[in-house]
Amino acid sequence: MSRPRIAISAGDPAGIGPDIVLAVAAGDWPAELVVIADADMLKARAEQLGLSASVLERISIEHEPLAAPAVPGEGDTRNAAAVLEALRRSVAGCQSGDYDALVTAPVNKAVIADSGVPFSGHTEFLAELTNTPRVVMLLAAGDLRVALATTHLPLRDVPVAVERAPLEEILRVLDSDLKAKFGLAAPRISVLGLNPHAGEGGHLGHEDEAVIAPAIAVARAAGIEASGPWPADTAFNATLRTNTDAYLAMYHDQGLPVLKYASFGAAVNITLGLPIIRTSVDHGTAFDLAGTGKADPSSLRAALTMAIELAEKRRGS
Amino acid sequence: MSRPRIAISAGDPAGIGPDIVLAVAAGDWPAELVVIADADMLKARAEQLGLSASVLERISIEHEPLAAPAVPGEGDTRNAAAVLEALRRSVAGCQSGDYDALVTAPVNKAVIADSGVPFSGHTEFLAELTNTPRVVMLLAAGDLRVALATTHLPLRDVPVAVERAPLEEILRVLDSDLKAKFGLAAPRISVLGLNPHAGEGGHLGHEDEAVIAPAIAVARAAGIEASGPWPADTAFNATLRTNTDAYLAMYHDQGLPVLKYASFGAAVNITLGLPIIRTSVDHGTAFDLAGTGKADPSSLRAALTMAIELAEKRRGS
Repeated sequence: MSRPRIAISAGDPAGIGPDIVLAVAAGDWPAELVVIADADMLKARAEQLGLSASVLERISIEHEPLAAPAVPGEGDTRNAAAVLEALRRSVAGCQSGDYDALVTAPVNKAVIADSGVPFSGHTEFLAELTNTPRVVMLLAAGDLRVALATTHLPLRDVPVAVERAPLEEILRVLDSDLKAKFGLAAPRISVLGLNPHAGEGGHLGHEDEAVIAPAIAVARAAGIEASGPWPADTAFNATLRTNTDAYLAMYHDQGLPVLKYASFGAAVNITLGLPIIRTSVDHGTAFDLAGTGKADPSSLRAALTMAIELAEKRRGS
Repeated sequence: MSRPRIAISAGDPAGIGPDIVLAVAAGDWPAELVVIADADMLKARAEQLGLSASVLERISIEHEPLAAPAVPGEGDTRNAAAVLEALRRSVAGCQSGDYDALVTAPVNKAVIADSGVPFSGHTEFLAELTNTPRVVMLLAAGDLRVALATTHLPLRDVPVAVERAPLEEILRVLDSDLKAKFGLAAPRISVLGLNPHAGEGGHLGHEDEAVIAPAIAVARAAGIEASGPWPADTAFNATLRTNTDAYLAMYHDQGLPVLKYASFGAAVNITLGLPIIRTSVDHGTAFDLAGTGKADPSSLRAALTMAIELAEKRRGS
């Protein structure tokens, strides 16, 4: 069987995306890496970083020309369209079977939004491109996996956004993709409560009993091995951890601090629900580090490793 | 110098408090342990757990009689008064200099409230007894310390409760007790944001810029080494961690999952702001485990170790 072909979008050219793509390209991978980006920009960045030109020979480049020269550290709205077009081409290639998976380096939400394109996020954009009604963000570090019921919301909007029907849908997507993409026969999903101590029997908020518990009950009735709602502070103890394939946290800062603490900078973001395999770094564009050689490629390396694993699982099955 | 005398309140007699106190008493400690509890209850529990009677000889007991026989697992409102009286005596002993520190086993909020005594929490009760206007809950596991700006609130009440004046006060208490009790000359306090990504420049909520940043500025102007607001998900990375003596999290489930994950079940709860040294377990009464021998004494052991350390620091200074 041939090696999987992995599409890598380099993200915002003013950020550390190109830097970490080049750093990762220097490694040996059991896959063909296809980088969708401006070829001249990649060459210039490699020179700026003092990398040997041979690093560019290790990857295939699908040239997606920028509208303006990329200046590390200086986001440029004129290049937003090329950044999005690279994503469109990557997705189309995954859908046509040209690529086996997509790995994305970070884009900058503000730069894209300021360019006049309505843009609520990288993942949301991919969902739109693939007509996916419900995507679920899962972060993984080794055996520890944390999915989010809500993602980038002000904290005051979270309690209202945690609703029963979406939770049921999220549990279905999570269960189905842990089976289909991760090969887990009967994934055990531990659902965290919304309130501290999972509401402590209604003394600390009603949502755990009124919203989350019923959603879990519906999922269980459908054969999904969901449990909870568990108090978030003790849910990551050793006992429950060994009995959990994925946690479902209710919001960003409930689930991600522990995941990122445990990952030592190498957490992978996997988008569940999409018809394609997509993994991503767990960090932003870090404009201040672009072109300096100080960007840490660990997360992209982990995302690529995970994409290759998932691609091989899919081809093998 | 004589060994420190440490008061230990056994907490709710129907819970695991007596079990873990007896388990810890069996160890060798560089301190005199004084347990404030019903002596007959302790003897009966030791027998039930199959412990040698000699374990009771290793501690001093200040007898505080229960109103009704304690049945493990069955909270009894008739014993609530004795549980509170044990706390009162412990605090009085700390204030008179009879004890050097207080270590508390868990009480049951519902049992006390159901007994007709208005009771919002263990820590709040101790604050009232000592006329302390502002206490701050700090959890510690080795070098990792996390204080909470708000504690046991439904999530929907958190954004409103995070206010500037209380934050300033909390930063003062935290700074002052990290100096006075922990002996840190210039404690570095990393303050977490309220919203994901610390509000992302106002795109994900306004409180980080409008409330938290100004409180930090006031603290810094007063010579406190506070920084932030930091995004919670990346704040526990290695770089910031080595530059942090204590984190200030905005709410329970933002700060405690990572702390408890890192502590492997041995986190210590320290109440800052009190005129006495008080440490506590980081868990509840676990009625279902009382009397079974399955209760894990790790957290009480860690709380006692910390109390002895802090007591010796105070006596040495």
